Amino acid sequence: MLKALVCDIDGTLTDTQRRVDTGAIGCIRKLVDRGVEVVLASGNTSCFMDALCRMIGTSGTFIAENGGVYRIGFDGSLHLDGDQSRCWEAFRILETHFRERGTSLQLYSDRYRFTDLAFGRTVSAKEVKEVLSGMPIKIVDTGYAIHLQVPEVNKGTALVRLAPEIGLSSDDFLAIGDSVNDLEMLSEAGTGVAVANANPRARDIADWVTQKKYGEGVVEAIQKYWSTFSKDIDQPRYSP
Amino acid sequence: MLKALVCDIDGTLTDTQRRVDTGAIGCIRKLVDRGVEVVLASGNTSCFMDALCRMIGTSGTFIAENGGVYRIGFDGSLHLDGDQSRCWEAFRILETHFRERGTSLQLYSDRYRFTDLAFGRTVSAKEVKEVLSGMPIKIVDTGYAIHLQVPEVNKGTALVRLAPEIGLSSDDFLAIGDSVNDLEMLSEAGTGVAVANANPRARDIADWVTQKKYGEGVVEAIQKYWSTFSKDIDQPRYSP
Repeated sequence: MLKALVCDIDGTLTDTQRRVDTGAIGCIRKLVDRGVEVVLASGNTSCFMDALCRMIGTSGTFIAENGGVYRIGFDGSLHLDGDQSRCWEAFRILETHFRERGTSLQLYSDRYRFTDLAFGRTVSAKEVKEVLSGMPIKIVDTGYAIHLQVPEVNKGTALVRLAPEIGLSSDDFLAIGDSVNDLEMLSEAGTGVAVANANPRARDIADWVTQKKYGEGVVEAIQKYWSTFSKDIDQPRYSP
Repeated sequence: MLKALVCDIDGTLTDTQRRVDTGAIGCIRKLVDRGVEVVLASGNTSCFMDALCRMIGTSGTFIAENGGVYRIGFDGSLHLDGDQSRCWEAFRILETHFRERGTSLQLYSDRYRFTDLAFGRTVSAKEVKEVLSGMPIKIVDTGYAIHLQVPEVNKGTALVRLAPEIGLSSDDFLAIGDSVNDLEMLSEAGTGVAVANANPRARDIADWVTQKKYGEGVVEAIQKYWSTFSKDIDQPRYSP
């Protein structure tokens, strides 16, 4: 019996323009109102995730920085996992490499990041991997940014660490995602679902792939796995 | 002719649980898709507002910290207005005062604030005003937090400053709000609208008060003032 949902944001809960799907918001609110724990998981910053939790109306528990940060509830403190100095070291090497090629790298919201680094996709992720080959650093191209992170941290490790803090195990979770940075989360969760637009590797590792894309896929998955809510969720009250 | 919308968040775009109204999100997306500039304005932090702009799908222009910060577009830098050290000075006085009474004050996200300070409503705003009477500091109780800010800065001054940067004047704006920290914004804008749940002072200063509350009031106002979109906005596509 699935007791909780952990859901990726970009490419999963959002549409092609990175806007959160309002149908999926309505559906998640139904789950929350019925006492199902909903954890939002992303490569974005903890500050961004706090805003998202408030806007959507969850209990405030999130995974940020691709697993480098998690928080339990709105009043929880940030749990950090991952040595950012190793990411900075790798980033300086990349800066030097690409500067010689006439390209400068654009860091994303580094002021708000504590364990990983993210920069714009103005350079090839393949070349980034070549430059950093042999270094103990993970390069993740989420399709929205290129992230540098210590290899031993991901959304799956964060899920395993946070679940007991809310009285659950990772087996109790339905995970929904679309990208390579969701792989460990999809396999650690009791059930992993990929939305129809997902990366082939995410589709391969998932227990089930939705027919619909993006937020509509999230709604489809929630309806399937929490079928007792289906009728109600089918017609969300859009203006609460 | 109104060319742009500036809209408060808490108590205006959100419901009683501070969740953003999905009907209002759909309505705002229609405006954005038709080229109407939508500026979100709040007492919250710039980081929170950045997330909100992305989730809703605006151009990224916002007013944060009750006017102390504004930004033009997602790539814009933060424009700061207001000396936070004056707020800190006032806050230390309050801390001492309430500590003697056995009450400690809880700052909200001060790491992410640049021009004002906000703390929990665990003490009476009236007593805060008494303690700080005579000091050049403004105390604003938004109903969600008590804010300390320099008196010469508000959402209205920010609106007047940012409008020319996007080729507009504050007269081109429809402003929608509910609270005492929206008063100057409502009067500086070409047209000021208060939602039905608004504070009496906001209702008094507004050009028009909606019949409906919260996000449904926002939809009502947009339908009234952008009547050419009415038919379309009346039936927003909830799952884009």
